[in-house]
Amino acid sequence: MEDITSEKLSLIIDGKCSNNDVVIDNFSSLKSSNNSSITFFTDRKLIDDLRKTKAKVVILKHEDRELRIGDWIVVDDPYLAFSKVADFFLKKNVFKSSIDPNTKIGINTKVSPGCYIGPFNSVGNNSIINHRVFIHSNVSIGNNVTIGEGSKLHPNVTIGDDVLIGKNCEIFAGASIGTDGFGYAQDADGAWNKIPQIGSVVIHNNVDIGSNTTIDRGAIDNTIIKSGVKIDNQVQVGHNCYIDENTIIAGCVGVAGSTIIGKNCKIGGAAMILGHLEISDSITISPGTMITKSLKKSNNKYTAIMPFMEHKEWLKMATKLKEKGK
Amino acid sequence: MEDITSEKLSLIIDGKCSNNDVVIDNFSSLKSSNNSSITFFTDRKLIDDLRKTKAKVVILKHEDRELRIGDWIVVDDPYLAFSKVADFFLKKNVFKSSIDPNTKIGINTKVSPGCYIGPFNSVGNNSIINHRVFIHSNVSIGNNVTIGEGSKLHPNVTIGDDVLIGKNCEIFAGASIGTDGFGYAQDADGAWNKIPQIGSVVIHNNVDIGSNTTIDRGAIDNTIIKSGVKIDNQVQVGHNCYIDENTIIAGCVGVAGSTIIGKNCKIGGAAMILGHLEISDSITISPGTMITKSLKKSNNKYTAIMPFMEHKEWLKMATKLKEKGK
Amino acid sequence: MEDITSEKLSLIIDGKCSNNDVVIDNFSSLKSSNNSSITFFTDRKLIDDLRKTKAKVVILKHEDRELRIGDWIVVDDPYLAFSKVADFFLKKNVFKSSIDPNTKIGINTKVSPGCYIGPFNSVGNNSIINHRVFIHSNVSIGNNVTIGEGSKLHPNVTIGDDVLIGKNCEIFAGASIGTDGFGYAQDADGAWNKIPQIGSVVIHNNVDIGSNTTIDRGAIDNTIIKSGVKIDNQVQVGHNCYIDENTIIAGCVGVAGSTIIGKNCKIGGAAMILGHLEISDSITISPGTMITKSLKKSNNKYTAIMPFMEHKEWLKMATKLKEKGK
Repeated sequence: MEDITSEKLSLIIDGKCSNNDVVIDNFSSLKSSNNSSITFFTDRKLIDDLRKTKAKVVILKHEDRELRIGDWIVVDDPYLAFSKVADFFLKKNVFKSSIDPNTKIGINTKVSPGCYIGPFNSVGNNSIINHRVFIHSNVSIGNNVTIGEGSKLHPNVTIGDDVLIGKNCEIFAGASIGTDGFGYAQDADGAWNKIPQIGSVVIHNNVDIGSNTTIDRGAIDNTIIKSGVKIDNQVQVGHNCYIDENTIIAGCVGVAGSTIIGKNCKIGGAAMILGHLEISDSITISPGTMITKSLKKSNNKYTAIMPFMEHKEWLKMATKLKEKGK
Repeated sequence: MEDITSEKLSLIIDGKCSNNDVVIDNFSSLKSSNNSSITFFTDRKLIDDLRKTKAKVVILKHEDRELRIGDWIVVDDPYLAFSKVADFFLKKNVFKSSIDPNTKIGINTKVSPGCYIGPFNSVGNNSIINHRVFIHSNVSIGNNVTIGEGSKLHPNVTIGDDVLIGKNCEIFAGASIGTDGFGYAQDADGAWNKIPQIGSVVIHNNVDIGSNTTIDRGAIDNTIIKSGVKIDNQVQVGHNCYIDENTIIAGCVGVAGSTIIGKNCKIGGAAMILGHLEISDSITISPGTMITKSLKKSNNKYTAIMPFMEHKEWLKMATKLKEKGK
Repeated sequence: MEDITSEKLSLIIDGKCSNNDVVIDNFSSLKSSNNSSITFFTDRKLIDDLRKTKAKVVILKHEDRELRIGDWIVVDDPYLAFSKVADFFLKKNVFKSSIDPNTKIGINTKVSPGCYIGPFNSVGNNSIINHRVFIHSNVSIGNNVTIGEGSKLHPNVTIGDDVLIGKNCEIFAGASIGTDGFGYAQDADGAWNKIPQIGSVVIHNNVDIGSNTTIDRGAIDNTIIKSGVKIDNQVQVGHNCYIDENTIIAGCVGVAGSTIIGKNCKIGGAAMILGHLEISDSITISPGTMITKSLKKSNNKYTAIMPFMEHKEWLKMATKLKEKGK
C-alpha cells in the first residue's frame, strides 16, 4: 500500500506543510501520540502537551506555528482538519461483506451486495437493505423498512415497521426508531384509549441518532428528520415532529409531539421543547432550558437556567421567590 | 369478508351518519386520506384541510357539520371516536400464532396456545406466557415471570425475574422492567455496599410502558403499577414506587424510590418527583417541574418552570436572582 | 448444609444478639417476613410493622431494643448490617458455569472457566472474558474487550470495541458502554463533520452501571470511571469524562463531555453538569440542579431548583421574574 505523507494529507485538508515527505500511519491526541502519528493543537492552555508530544506532525493555526518544534501542517481550523484526517484513516478499514447464518431475514426482503449483517439480527418482511449497510448484532428491524446505502446500525437497535432510513446514517446502540407515539383519548370513566399510531418515521441522509434515543412514529402522518441532523444519546422525539436540516441536538433532550424545528438549530443538553411549537431556523437553545412557546425570531438564543448556588444561599432565594407568587 | 359501512362504524362510536351505505376500508388523517378512508375533524384551524380532504367520511362535531361537503358521522368527541374506529381496523389484523425455533424457552415454562414468539427471544424457567401474548424479537424474560393474556412485548425489552405483567399490557422497545433498584449503604471508608433488591415489579392490566423506560424492582417489597397507567418513553420509576390507576406519565419523567402517586394524575414531560413522597389523586404536574414535597390536595396543578428569555435578558435576571441568595 | 444461626450472622455484622441459637434461612422486610427470616428496623414511624412482623430476628439499634418483642441483633447501623446479611444469603446462590450453544464467540476470544454465558449473546474477536463472569442474554460485546473477574452483564447490554471493564462490576439491562462520543465540526455550508471517536472507556472495579445508561467512548483519550462508582438508570456520561472513586450518581443525570468529577461526590437525580468542568471531591449536587461552572470547594452542597407552586401562584411569580430581565 502507498505511503501516506504529510503532502498527501495537506491536500485533503487544504493546508500547508513544513515538509512534504513525512510518512504518517495513524492519528492520535497530543498525549497518546507515537512517532508515526498526526495530531492537532488549537488551545494554548495545552502548550505543555504540545511541547512533550511524540507525534510526527501537528496540525495547527498559522499563529501557533512558532510554538511547534518539529513538523506541522498549517490550516485555518485545526479541529475540523483533524476530523477529516481521522475520517480518512478510518475509511481505509472497510468491513468485509457477509450475512451471519444466525440472523433471520424475512420473506420478500432484499439485501443488496456489500452488506455486513452480524448474528442474532431479525429483519422483517418486504424490507430493503441497500448497499454497504452494516448491521451489528441483536438488531430488530420490522416489516416494509428501507435502510439506505452505507448506513450503520449498532447493537440492540430497534427499527419499527414502515420506517425509512436514508443514506450514510448511523444509529447507535439501543436506539428505538418508530416506537408508537404517546396518544390517548380519555373515556368518561377516566380510562385512556389508545389512539393508534399509524404514521411512520422518515429519516433522510447523513443523520446520526445516539444511543438509547427514541423517535416515535407519527400518529397518522410521519415523524420527519431531515438530512444532516445529529442527535445525541438519551433524546426523546415525540410523534409527528419535523426536524429540519443540520440541526444538532445534545444528550437528554426531549421534544414533545408535533413540534417543528428549523434548520441549523443548536439544542443544548437536557433542554425540553413542548409540543405543537414552531422553532425558527438557526435558533440556539441553552442546556436545561424549557421552551414553552414558539420561537419565531431566527438567529436568536434563549435560556431558562436557574443559576446554581451554595445550598444555604439557595434556601434564602427560594423563600423570596415563593413570596412573589403570593 | 363483509363490507364495513358508515352505518356499522356509527354503531361502534355511537354516532349519527349522513348516509348508511358508504363503504370504508381504512382510516387516515385529513391530509393523507384516500377515497375509501375515514378521518376526523375537530380543530377549526384545519378548515382548509377539511375542504381539501379526499376522505370518504369525516367524523366531526354537530356544530361543524355544515363545514363538510360530503359524508360525515356526527359524535360528541371526534378524537375519541376516531381512536375507536382506528382500533377496530387494527384489530382485524390478528397475528398468526407461532414460536420461532431460534428462541429459547426455559424449563417448566408454559406457553399458552395462540401466542406469537419471534426469533432470538430468551424466556427463563418456571415462567407463564398466557394466551395471545405477542413477543417480537431479542426480548429477554427472566425466571418465574408471568405475562398476562393479550400483552405485547416489543424488541429488545428486558423483563427481570419474578416480574408479573397483567393482561393487555404493551411494553415498547428497549424498556427494562425489574432492573435492580438503586440502594447502597456507605461504609466508614466511603465504599458503597449494595442493598440487595429482592422485591419485584407487579404491573396490572392495560398498562403501557414506553420505549427505553426503566422500572426498578423493589428493595424488599414490590414496585407496583396499577391498571390503566400509561407511561411514555425514557421514563425512570424507582424501586418501591406505587402508581395508581389511570395515571398518565409523559416522556423523560423521573420518579425516585418509594413515592406513591394517586389515581388519574397527569405528569408532564421531564417532570421529576423526589423519593418517599405522596401525590394525591387527580394532581396535574406541569412539564419540567420538580416536586420536592408531598402533594396532598387533590385536583390541583403544580408548576416550577423557569420562564425562558432571550439570553441577554436571562443574564440580567440571573444576576438579580443570585443577589437574593446573599 | 450447616445451619445459619443468629450467632453466625452477628459475627458477620459485628452485632450482639439476644439468643445465639436462632436458625434463620432467608431475609425479608418487616412486612413480608416469615417465621424463619431476618429483617431490620430503623425508622420509628414503622413501629406498627415492627410489632406485627413475623420475622424470627430483627436487626436494630441499641436504643430500639426495648421496642422488640422477640429476638434481635443490635448494631450501630441496621440498614448497612442488613445489606451485609442479605448479601451473605444471595452469595450462597452461585450460578452454574456454562456457555449456551446459541451464542457467538469471536476468533481469539478467551473465556475463562467458571463463566455463565446465556443465549443470543455476541462476543467479538480478541476479547477476554475472565473467571466467573455472568452474561445473561442478547448482550453484544465488541472486539478487544476485557471483562474482569466476577462481573455481571444483564440482558440487552452493549459493550463497544476496546472497552475495559474491571472486576465485580454489574452492568444493568440495556446499558450501552463505549458508544461514540458526540463530536462534530461544522463546515462552511452548515453540515456537521463527525470527529472520529477513537478513545475507549475504562471502567475500574466494583462499578455498577444502571439500566439504559449510556457512557460514551473518548474522542481520542479514554472516558474513565474509577473503582466503586455507582451509576443509576437513564444516565448519560459524555466522552472523556473522568469520574473518581466512590462517587454516586442517581437516575436521569447527564454529564457532558470532558468533565472531571472528584471522589465521594453525590449527584442527585436529574442533575446536569456541563462539559469541560471540574467538580472537587465530596461535593453534593441537589437533584434537578444544573451546574454550569467548575466547583472547586470540596465538601460543599449546590442547588438550583425552581421551587414548585400552585399553578396560579407560579403564573404571578413568572411574570415578576420576566420583568427582571428587562
